Amino acid sequence: MKPGINFTPGPSQLYFTVDDHVRKAFKEGIPSLSHRSKQFESIYQSTKEGLTELLNIPSGFHIVFCASATEIWERIIQNLVEKESHHFVNGAFSKRFYEIALQLGKHAIKTEANTGKSFEPFTGHTTGELIALTHNETSTGVSLTMPFINQFKEQFPKALVAVDAVSSLPYPEFDFSKIDSVFFSVQKGFGLPAGLGVWIVNEKCIGRAESLLSKGTSIGSYHTLPSLIEFEKKNQTPETPNVLGIYLLSKVVHDMARKGALAIRKETEYKAAILYHALQQHTFLKPFVAAEQDRSKTVIVAESGEHTQQVTDVLQTKGLFPGEGYGTLKKSQLRFANFPTHSKEQYEYLVDVLSDIR
Amino acid sequence: MKPGINFTPGPSQLYFTVDDHVRKAFKEGIPSLSHRSKQFESIYQSTKEGLTELLNIPSGFHIVFCASATEIWERIIQNLVEKESHHFVNGAFSKRFYEIALQLGKHAIKTEANTGKSFEPFTGHTTGELIALTHNETSTGVSLTMPFINQFKEQFPKALVAVDAVSSLPYPEFDFSKIDSVFFSVQKGFGLPAGLGVWIVNEKCIGRAESLLSKGTSIGSYHTLPSLIEFEKKNQTPETPNVLGIYLLSKVVHDMARKGALAIRKETEYKAAILYHALQQHTFLKPFVAAEQDRSKTVIVAESGEHTQQVTDVLQTKGLFPGEGYGTLKKSQLRFANFPTHSKEQYEYLVDVLSDIR
Repeated sequence: MKPGINFTPGPSQLYFTVDDHVRKAFKEGIPSLSHRSKQFESIYQSTKEGLTELLNIPSGFHIVFCASATEIWERIIQNLVEKESHHFVNGAFSKRFYEIALQLGKHAIKTEANTGKSFEPFTGHTTGELIALTHNETSTGVSLTMPFINQFKEQFPKALVAVDAVSSLPYPEFDFSKIDSVFFSVQKGFGLPAGLGVWIVNEKCIGRAESLLSKGTSIGSYHTLPSLIEFEKKNQTPETPNVLGIYLLSKVVHDMARKGALAIRKETEYKAAILYHALQQHTFLKPFVAAEQDRSKTVIVAESGEHTQQVTDVLQTKGLFPGEGYGTLKKSQLRFANFPTHSKEQYEYLVDVLSDIR
Repeated sequence: MKPGINFTPGPSQLYFTVDDHVRKAFKEGIPSLSHRSKQFESIYQSTKEGLTELLNIPSGFHIVFCASATEIWERIIQNLVEKESHHFVNGAFSKRFYEIALQLGKHAIKTEANTGKSFEPFTGHTTGELIALTHNETSTGVSLTMPFINQFKEQFPKALVAVDAVSSLPYPEFDFSKIDSVFFSVQKGFGLPAGLGVWIVNEKCIGRAESLLSKGTSIGSYHTLPSLIEFEKKNQTPETPNVLGIYLLSKVVHDMARKGALAIRKETEYKAAILYHALQQHTFLKPFVAAEQDRSKTVIVAESGEHTQQVTDVLQTKGLFPGEGYGTLKKSQLRFANFPTHSKEQYEYLVDVLSDIR
């Protein structure tokens, strides 16, 4: 990778404090630390405390580690669904979550929205034991609104609500009384090396997994929710985890908490606002997501059409590396991650360069 | 962790070249490299080439990545077993492999040997579709002999033979015509930060997984063998993997291959020989594994009884950190990893210090 500013939506540019933390980690022997040591337990504990502060997680929620958000899709289906899950699908990643339910032999229902669109308020009925939502569809830059996410708990009190927040956290402020689980991977908004997924669950999720287990349903082996929680209570993991990744996460969440969730949110909104504004004013670029309330603040997608290569070339000569469009939109769109590691100054520079392209 | 030499059998002391590779990785932007980039593909390719050379893997075998050897236990059972697996159990880790088969709803048969012992040549019959062997039982320091491992292929040509080589590779030289799969995690013999498992499989394993899938058996989702192999053919992974971990593995296997498998083997055997000799000559220490042919070359277990604390204290004041005994043997045994990162000089020093304790 050439030096410059990386705007690809994941793996993202590292959070600016990571280099220092890595150096310190190697000096302190973290990469060869036993996952059964007191020192590891205190790293786990510190990660939980930092995330709880940063994301304002209420008591009654537990934080466990998997290898990736992809793994968490699988574990959610295995542990929280006996027969039927209901998925809101509006892009490649929400679709993959749905497909995993099918692969695991569940009856998966989907409500679909067109690419680049969000959903109407849900007025139908569902028998799904799980409502699977993707807060931020990384492929298209569509975000679900908080009222949309929050409607399900009241309508379907027996269903569990799980939210994929892979490319949005730590930006969004979820109402944890309206959701049962939320998860992310660290290589996006948290700006860390890939190889770690973070799964946040409440007691209802644990109860569901225990109930499936007691009925004789196979819910996995080492990474069942009961097994993850049994170890989490000791600040340990069932298997040897990515110890270095957990250490780095603990450091970065504390850095972010010191800066403050509010400051991160304000900055994110400012950067999103100036980029969307520039796209709207542009001669030939425009925001891909038409409806303003559905536009992601953290993954901003530009419709660049036949100018895609030209724009990419100009940006790259200035050391700015945009993400390509996803899948079939590779050659006609550009995606810009707007994560906490991207400074206001970097975004202002990006906007200046983009606006000058005619 | 205090500075010193770490002899715990995993996570182990880092291989001595890792620090440099990490520095270079961060300089080159590896931690934020896309797993869909050409550069990632060439890292994957290079890891395969290095491992193929170092472990002398014949053509027809594929190398895929999981998050841990624990995950690979689960994936092996899901992908290679329809109904029944047969496990050789002589310690905590081989037992865990067996238990995972039960958790996944399979009929798991076990042949057991007592703690600290290996097995008699197998003269029975088995209907197991999979023979699950643990080359090196990390909990007790017992290794299976090559004739023991190699007997099954001829006796049970329809069964697949999978070998857990977590705490022995890269030392052992397997006869790949007698096994179908072998796997390890990187934080032991390869001296790398934890968070990556390496799964080596032949075409028969892939065929078995495809056959289960075509029968409608659920074999998982993103990490089914057909999915892993589909991506491996492009030098990619289904999910965003531990990119930094794979990069570091590629570097270390080439370092080791340059040194040569033969040289690593000779050194390992020399270090094991002097430590076992010292234990046999010692006033109150002795090797835990009685039968010489069953003694692991890579995890050497000393019976230290009531002297355990005394020996540990002396070693630690000299900067030598032994591993504790495993489980109930925590207070009466010490374990010494003998991995490629441990130099002859370090082992000679360890032996001198141990021999002086009376």
